[in-house]
Amino acid sequence: METAPVETRAPSIGALKLAQAQSLLESSGLDAWLVVVRESAERPDPILRFFFDLDFTWTTFFLVTRDWSAALVATFDAPDLVRLGLFDEVVTYREGPRAQLLELLRKRDPARIGINFSIDDALADGITAGLRDYLAESLAGTPFASRIVSAAPLLSVLRGVKLEEERGLVTLAVNETELMFDRVRDRIRVGQTARQIAGEFHVEAARGGVRTAWPKHHCPTVTVGAKSPIGHVGPSEEPVTLNCAVHVDFGIILNGYCSDLQRFWYVPPAGGSGAPEPVRRAYQTIVDAIDLAARSLIPGALGWEDDEKARKLLLSRGYPEYPHALGHHLGRAVHDGGGVLGPRWERYGREPFEPVRVGNVFTLEPSIHLEEHGLISLEEDVVVGPKGAEFLSRFPRELPILRLP
Amino acid sequence: METAPVETRAPSIGALKLAQAQSLLESSGLDAWLVVVRESAERPDPILRFFFDLDFTWTTFFLVTRDWSAALVATFDAPDLVRLGLFDEVVTYREGPRAQLLELLRKRDPARIGINFSIDDALADGITAGLRDYLAESLAGTPFASRIVSAAPLLSVLRGVKLEEERGLVTLAVNETELMFDRVRDRIRVGQTARQIAGEFHVEAARGGVRTAWPKHHCPTVTVGAKSPIGHVGPSEEPVTLNCAVHVDFGIILNGYCSDLQRFWYVPPAGGSGAPEPVRRAYQTIVDAIDLAARSLIPGALGWEDDEKARKLLLSRGYPEYPHALGHHLGRAVHDGGGVLGPRWERYGREPFEPVRVGNVFTLEPSIHLEEHGLISLEEDVVVGPKGAEFLSRFPRELPILRLP
Repeated sequence: METAPVETRAPSIGALKLAQAQSLLESSGLDAWLVVVRESAERPDPILRFFFDLDFTWTTFFLVTRDWSAALVATFDAPDLVRLGLFDEVVTYREGPRAQLLELLRKRDPARIGINFSIDDALADGITAGLRDYLAESLAGTPFASRIVSAAPLLSVLRGVKLEEERGLVTLAVNETELMFDRVRDRIRVGQTARQIAGEFHVEAARGGVRTAWPKHHCPTVTVGAKSPIGHVGPSEEPVTLNCAVHVDFGIILNGYCSDLQRFWYVPPAGGSGAPEPVRRAYQTIVDAIDLAARSLIPGALGWEDDEKARKLLLSRGYPEYPHALGHHLGRAVHDGGGVLGPRWERYGREPFEPVRVGNVFTLEPSIHLEEHGLISLEEDVVVGPKGAEFLSRFPRELPILRLP
Repeated sequence: METAPVETRAPSIGALKLAQAQSLLESSGLDAWLVVVRESAERPDPILRFFFDLDFTWTTFFLVTRDWSAALVATFDAPDLVRLGLFDEVVTYREGPRAQLLELLRKRDPARIGINFSIDDALADGITAGLRDYLAESLAGTPFASRIVSAAPLLSVLRGVKLEEERGLVTLAVNETELMFDRVRDRIRVGQTARQIAGEFHVEAARGGVRTAWPKHHCPTVTVGAKSPIGHVGPSEEPVTLNCAVHVDFGIILNGYCSDLQRFWYVPPAGGSGAPEPVRRAYQTIVDAIDLAARSLIPGALGWEDDEKARKLLLSRGYPEYPHALGHHLGRAVHDGGGVLGPRWERYGREPFEPVRVGNVFTLEPSIHLEEHGLISLEEDVVVGPKGAEFLSRFPRELPILRLP
């Protein structure tokens, strides 16, 4: 077995994350972790990107215990996996995997086998429904049938607690994104439309050789003034004018890790010195809410508690609640799994009840919508330390005024 | 509701496929079809690409009956879907969708509701396990809980039976790919490695502004002589020599539809006139097997029956069985769902028992591996008509000899 890594960009992350997964099994109440995929180019399990950038056509199993790991894979899917050298064993099959799967399980005899499904955590919900049925069918009549449980407790920490190397990669992505914002900001002109500003961000991404953090059709989301539609939506033909708010939500994927930032600029009227008072007051409220949320992001706090602090601050100043969460995890995925800094609304399920942990990377993004001026919001990226959050992004506390010729 | 389509490349396919799905409900034993996704950029249901190129962050429902269709979507995910104008209704929610989901179901009261899961058909297995649990939980205590069944019979035909417009798009992709093969073939030189030949295909894809049909790390797969590894594997450093076989498996995605072709060339020795007899005999056997399989691809035949004809022809000439299926569906996905022309092996489950239908597009790709010369194989793309298959690809019946300077 050769050991040359296939993933050249971040060669050691796969091995480090596998070791992290192994170290988390016991505290997650698991003896083994079993990942199952097929046609993974079409139906990916998003956890696999942590380990390699490979796809598997036929049903493929990855079995991990505290001190051992194995892959069971169809012959034609095997060569790159063998070359990767990540797993202690790579077992191949031709006609079907069931007999060898049972043999692998018998050899280790795990009492609790976690697989990737979760009602609440979309990023821990890696296995498809039919594939879980297939696994149940394959294990029927064996002791393993009753040992399958959710691996969500493992995945929540594996995704959510970033290794030092991962925090470094998110920081690189954030820094690069801040520079892209700077350059596009300097090219904004009166008459330019939201769609054209979005195009400038795509130029930046192309020059940097990076993908946008979410599908580029609505990355960035650009809101110009009060008439642009709000939400995950493609940019409109609304032009920048004098006396106008410009808001952008943008992120990139650099070395496999995401950034996610929102910036806000105000274009003053001719001869005017700054933004109108309602805009200044809303911006200051956003800044205060982010500051409060960051200070309160203490290990052990629950996600909803942090959201509630920011939400109540806005309410106390007479603004309505923002119709979304305060923030989300950020990492390999832009909406990374394992909890949310969000309200206890039905759509968030149990996610707001996940505790904050050292090494979590979150976005903080409260928003205010002013009927007359549009969307006023910032989004900062922070990492949780033992005593609260540190900002990875610049956090522009002064409202940026954009004087255009 | 505006009606300007967001998908500009093939604007009418989405509406046509939705109408096709509606027309197939009754024969699939369904009263309604329910598609559920969340974080669909990370966990896509591959069926949605038929209708639009949009992603949904929060849990989103698409409900289709014979004469009506609706989407239930979080407010922030809604604007593009409204603009698309594909659904009769777009209902939005803020805190959670359950109440509105039940209301939509009660309004139509379907007796059998198909959702996308399948033990055997990976492309019909669109819903994740936790999301199916979430749906079950949401419907608990209502009459709908016991009405959920698999939509696989619907998806099998919806994916598998290509509309005329879709067949046209596959044909365009195939034709473009044949031209790419021609151009790369003309640039092959002695000493060029498998990896370099793969690079030339990536140059073609970049110039054409198209993506490869499967991840470019192993698209194309290039096999040079007997020493290259076989399978879904990145290209090796094996150089082209005189007296050497070159085999390439490559496809592209053009306008959202895939091609998938294998071509074989023989580089003769200096002064030699052609390929050695074992190579010629194997190539002729591949040609005969494809001809036989195409003639036998009659509506109503089962997938395994067609595979067996080609498989037995190879056996009858003293070659071993190929360790894979004869062919697969081709369309939006390169391994499209809804059956396979493959043997009744465990790993194919019930897929070889799907009948061939008019409008199916299949690959035909038997292979022979010669110890001394490497992989000898072709892959042709065909469409099933009322009386058998028609070739969409060129099908080079004469062994192509590549004379290199």
